[in-house]
Amino acid sequence: MSVASDQMEESVEHKQHVVNHNHTAHHLKQYFFPTEHVPRLSASDPLASQLIAEEKPVVLTDTNLCDTALKWDLDYLAQHMGSERYMVFLSNNHKFKYYDEAKIKQYKTNFVPPTRRVDLTFPEFVKKLREWKPGDERVYLQQGLNNTVGQAIVMDFLQFNWQWLNMQQKNNNWGPLTSNLLLVGMEGNVTPVHYDEQQNFFSQLVGYKRCILFAPEHYERLYPYPVYHPHDRQSQVDFDDPDMEKFPGLKHLQGMEAVVGPGDVLYIPMYWWHQIESLPHLGNTVSVNFWYKGGPTEKIEYPLKPRQKLAIMRNVEKMLLEALREPAEVGPLLRSLVLGRYT
Amino acid sequence: MSVASDQMEESVEHKQHVVNHNHTAHHLKQYFFPTEHVPRLSASDPLASQLIAEEKPVVLTDTNLCDTALKWDLDYLAQHMGSERYMVFLSNNHKFKYYDEAKIKQYKTNFVPPTRRVDLTFPEFVKKLREWKPGDERVYLQQGLNNTVGQAIVMDFLQFNWQWLNMQQKNNNWGPLTSNLLLVGMEGNVTPVHYDEQQNFFSQLVGYKRCILFAPEHYERLYPYPVYHPHDRQSQVDFDDPDMEKFPGLKHLQGMEAVVGPGDVLYIPMYWWHQIESLPHLGNTVSVNFWYKGGPTEKIEYPLKPRQKLAIMRNVEKMLLEALREPAEVGPLLRSLVLGRYT
Ligand SMILES: [Zn+2]
Ligand SMILES: [Zn+2]
Repeated sequence: MSVASDQMEESVEHKQHVVNHNHTAHHLKQYFFPTEHVPRLSASDPLASQLIAEEKPVVLTDTNLCDTALKWDLDYLAQHMGSERYMVFLSNNHKFKYYDEAKIKQYKTNFVPPTRRVDLTFPEFVKKLREWKPGDERVYLQQGLNNTVGQAIVMDFLQFNWQWLNMQQKNNNWGPLTSNLLLVGMEGNVTPVHYDEQQNFFSQLVGYKRCILFAPEHYERLYPYPVYHPHDRQSQVDFDDPDMEKFPGLKHLQGMEAVVGPGDVLYIPMYWWHQIESLPHLGNTVSVNFWYKGGPTEKIEYPLKPRQKLAIMRNVEKMLLEALREPAEVGPLLRSLVLGRYT
Repeated sequence: MSVASDQMEESVEHKQHVVNHNHTAHHLKQYFFPTEHVPRLSASDPLASQLIAEEKPVVLTDTNLCDTALKWDLDYLAQHMGSERYMVFLSNNHKFKYYDEAKIKQYKTNFVPPTRRVDLTFPEFVKKLREWKPGDERVYLQQGLNNTVGQAIVMDFLQFNWQWLNMQQKNNNWGPLTSNLLLVGMEGNVTPVHYDEQQNFFSQLVGYKRCILFAPEHYERLYPYPVYHPHDRQSQVDFDDPDMEKFPGLKHLQGMEAVVGPGDVLYIPMYWWHQIESLPHLGNTVSVNFWYKGGPTEKIEYPLKPRQKLAIMRNVEKMLLEALREPAEVGPLLRSLVLGRYT
């Protein structure tokens, strides 16, 4: 990582980026952890391919992945997204923390969802977004792209740089593309820190997003919820008000970050933690995710990679839940197993 | 359990026992935990069968299990055990804490065995035992009974009450008898608290032993070593000097106990914790274990029994060791999994 970012200091791309986004740098909120820059590279730079192969994040500046979607601003989308209803989340603050509705039903917990889901037509959504004033609920559209989104959008979609995507998939031995999520957010919206179990090309179309990432080995410093919890894969840590006593590992947290703008593609490797913020004062944001399954079960080689250990931990929790059936029994058993024995 | 011991207070058998062993009661060391009496019952008492079926400990007074071995005192054994060498443990204190030699080799830990194993002829062993004076190493013979132990011993062995044993095995759906261990110990020797993964009829032949037991649900109060540790299945707790801060669960520890003498058979259910002490000032002890495998995998019914949860915990540890390969990595992973997440 440090090799990559040393090299970056010399890169023309990087300097251009610093200049381009200079006006934003001063507005970035300071968190309690240090960060390095995610390298910004040309897609044709061999180092870029190497980083992807090594499952390390990189911002690619010239993939031309979604050139036909760079025009997807609110007006264009309002005009072409048709009259379908789309999934919109409403939040009383700037955070949109994901939760798994299936797990709420399955485990009948007293879970109170931090956001509210509604289904709005695109014009309804745009109205809410345009009329928003401080104190109102914030809104975030998060809708899978499918063939109901309107013909013009589908046409743009079909012209994405699928050749480049297929090459990445093949070169890195990934599984199939599973979904594309269209994200339309207000400036200031935050998707709090979490990890996904898929490879992700995060393509920025409109506006600017700050992406903060942590390697999988920071697992023990980010305290994810139990696997059966609706907030599975989300950190319990509130970056705006971190509880350093409850989560002492936070002291050693170290991240990487990048600001992505129109045309940039951020590779978010599977199991890498990430928080995504639509930068304040810089307008609405539009992005599209490309999620791929990880490769087929790879040959186990020792020492294990941090993300393999993370997968083992997930399996332990799943196995225990299956054996005990009752989520409320997983904690007591794990405490018996560990406290005084492995502490 | 409390029902059983209430009934015991009325039992003639029990009163006889109290009278018989009254002289010993005053010599019993007081530990930091309370204990109830293990019921003392006739093998023909339906309650005895019920306790065994429920996997609860009971002392049976009239099984006639090893009547032909009640004469196995040191002289008889010295005369008939022949010239074979037998497994003898030497300890610098009164404790003989079991360790698994295979696990020492396998994991190349810095483990220092707390006892030393030597192979002695029976006369050599008896000499050590008879000439023992304070400051000397204590000795404990622990030898599996097989057909090399001398013809007279084998003849006695063949006349054990196998009919009763087979009936118990059948009625309770246990697996096969796996081994018989002959234990010849000095007064004052202690086998520290541990659990076994087998059903056990513990048959007392000569002298008196105090047996302290804890139900499997006391797992979290007895802090067993990790599964890959040579002291697997042993508690980390030193009953003579308990570290209440390191092991706070000890405050809630509650046991059962019994003193067994010649002719008594103690049923030690699988996964029940037990510490066995040859009482001080009452001479050498001779006992034989009958170990049986547990039943075939039983139908899983909820709620799970404590011993089933214990088995699940053992499986988690084994699975992790298999996945990580390196015992030193199990602790850090378990701590990441639990601390700040389930604590
Ligand atoms: Zn994500
Ligand atoms: Zn034992």
